[in-house]
Amino acid sequence: MINEQYLAMLSNKSVIRELSEYATRRGKEVGYENVFDFSLGNPSVPVPDSFNESIEKLLKEEEPVKLHGYSPSLGIPEVKEKVAASLTERFGIPYTGNLIFPTSGAAGAIAHALRAVTKPGDEVLVFAPYFPEYVPYINTTGARIKVVPADMENFQINFDAAEEAMTENVAAVLINTPNNPSGVLYSVETLEKLALLLKKKSAEYGHNIFLISDEPYREIIFDGCKAPYPAAFYDHTLVCYSFSKSLSIPGERIGYVAVNPTCEQAENLVPMMGQISRGIGHNCPSSVIMLAMAENVDKTADLSVYETNMNLFYNLFVELGFKVVRPGGTFYIMPKALEEDDVMFCKKALQYDLVFVPAGGFGAPGHFRIAYCTDTEKVERALPRIRQFVEECYPNR
Amino acid sequence: MINEQYLAMLSNKSVIRELSEYATRRGKEVGYENVFDFSLGNPSVPVPDSFNESIEKLLKEEEPVKLHGYSPSLGIPEVKEKVAASLTERFGIPYTGNLIFPTSGAAGAIAHALRAVTKPGDEVLVFAPYFPEYVPYINTTGARIKVVPADMENFQINFDAAEEAMTENVAAVLINTPNNPSGVLYSVETLEKLALLLKKKSAEYGHNIFLISDEPYREIIFDGCKAPYPAAFYDHTLVCYSFSKSLSIPGERIGYVAVNPTCEQAENLVPMMGQISRGIGHNCPSSVIMLAMAENVDKTADLSVYETNMNLFYNLFVELGFKVVRPGGTFYIMPKALEEDDVMFCKKALQYDLVFVPAGGFGAPGHFRIAYCTDTEKVERALPRIRQFVEECYPNR
Repeated sequence: MINEQYLAMLSNKSVIRELSEYATRRGKEVGYENVFDFSLGNPSVPVPDSFNESIEKLLKEEEPVKLHGYSPSLGIPEVKEKVAASLTERFGIPYTGNLIFPTSGAAGAIAHALRAVTKPGDEVLVFAPYFPEYVPYINTTGARIKVVPADMENFQINFDAAEEAMTENVAAVLINTPNNPSGVLYSVETLEKLALLLKKKSAEYGHNIFLISDEPYREIIFDGCKAPYPAAFYDHTLVCYSFSKSLSIPGERIGYVAVNPTCEQAENLVPMMGQISRGIGHNCPSSVIMLAMAENVDKTADLSVYETNMNLFYNLFVELGFKVVRPGGTFYIMPKALEEDDVMFCKKALQYDLVFVPAGGFGAPGHFRIAYCTDTEKVERALPRIRQFVEECYPNR
Repeated sequence: MINEQYLAMLSNKSVIRELSEYATRRGKEVGYENVFDFSLGNPSVPVPDSFNESIEKLLKEEEPVKLHGYSPSLGIPEVKEKVAASLTERFGIPYTGNLIFPTSGAAGAIAHALRAVTKPGDEVLVFAPYFPEYVPYINTTGARIKVVPADMENFQINFDAAEEAMTENVAAVLINTPNNPSGVLYSVETLEKLALLLKKKSAEYGHNIFLISDEPYREIIFDGCKAPYPAAFYDHTLVCYSFSKSLSIPGERIGYVAVNPTCEQAENLVPMMGQISRGIGHNCPSSVIMLAMAENVDKTADLSVYETNMNLFYNLFVELGFKVVRPGGTFYIMPKALEEDDVMFCKKALQYDLVFVPAGGFGAPGHFRIAYCTDTEKVERALPRIRQFVEECYPNR
């Protein structure tokens, strides 16, 4: 008999996907340029030329049986060493190649990291607002997600709620900074307090609680800031990274897990992920993509458009009287809606061909998310439409 | 706390990998050309040029944001349609794009197919001799592998044992033809008998038993035969395919699941695999690789060397008095060892720098496997060494 659990999941359609499908249908009616679809987080800038050039060079110069042959099950050693050297150079942590596990994007990284440091029945703590895909990511491992309510003032961590939630069954904490959906960057103070809490609770329960840090937006940082690196604050950290946003190659599925040298069982965790791969059918990312990534590990696409767009949205929302936290990075902003029901707010916006995502599903009810990974020209055309929507629907805001 | 199950797996080293590591060490001592390493099943012929040309063309001609962008979660529609059309043309089954799920090789395909048609606690039947990776593939889903002893005469299916093993808890049967490790191709008669048994037991237990057909060696067929296509024999079949061997690109991790149009819940199975992907972190193969595969779906590398090598080995083993079944495909042959203990036999062979794999771990005790995916020149140089080993160690065979 087929698996009823997965069959049942088919009827739970993602709100984001439904909105995006609506936008596509509406685009066919009125022209796609007239639908302001800010629902999906798809990078909108091209890959750096050097990435494609690396692939072309590999195809030309490498011996094909070797180039396209099986990778070692823990990843290509030179690739792992280049990633380790880059992280060490940038963040001062002495990573080595054996602590790096190349994966198919951040989703693959999280799938391995979660399975390595939890067992069925354990709980994994997530702080709202959070990426809703964490629910299937965590719950299909056999562990269970436990959501800590948001700090609704500034979308840092609600530490009172976190302390209460961190019971003995919590094996790991999964964070995402800069954050989807809020765009907020966890501050040094937040990361220090989190590390203190993890140490305290680990000592109290007699086992280390692991920190899994999901960082696909690490390179999209605004206002000239340097983003604090979570692994520098807590020993038992596994960083999950994706090049989807930094190199603008989400379809190529490339990322990694980086295990802190100070992490419990550090030297065993990557080999364990190799074992996990056998069961979940992962078995390394594509060789060509892995090698091309390694040659471009410190490069990024031109990400400046995201900051330009953020400023346009942020300034408008402030001007219109919205309560909104200024994003520190990503390509998201999450203002407070102008009525309590965020779904109703977004439905009204749809009448103006403005596609926003209600943030209740992200654990931030009463808010809405805008993904501004689009041309600035489109953002500029959207601004008067937003103003019109707000002034007509919420004249007394 | 880290996951003890995966930690424990680290101490179970694969015999094949240990032998291969031995061969590498020995190669450093005496020169790699003097070690006859027939342990690993790595394709030895180059990819067809057209595959690399397809990648180069995609990089040159496609708009980069689209080319490297997220694929739809069930795979790129044009890719799915090309695969379906090719299978329909070749095997006469009316596949459509929505029945094809692109995956990261056969391992990814099996990971999805197994989870779609079993639930934790179910049993999955496997016929010896079998690929030992099936153990972690199956057991990490929550289902349990159940091995049916081999038909030691011809390595088709031992139907008496199969009938006995097919109890009510069996949700799926996983087959592999042409077979690793034996090289044997299941005959039309075998596939007909298997289909009859599956129908009978499905009726008896009131639920369909699914057939998962793992076919990475489908295109490596000898003696001008046409390989019977298992899905044509039984409605409820999921084909798991990999281009690793046919296109000689195992490192690129590309394959698919093809769901029979007549399969129970056919139209839901691929969307269910999309849900499974979210949990196991798979989320589509690389876009560039998927698109290049689609343009080369009917091509193969020059696979003729495998048949040449098979004939050299087969003829020698027959001449030396071995009991050996003639392979119908793959790049494996599995003769009966000249003593009961296959590990001891292989250890003696190692003294002659002949690296064979004892087949006890494949469910064929008393046999050994040779992987002849090497240059023919190396096979030719190995033959006198094998003769010497056999004549010196087993003079009275």
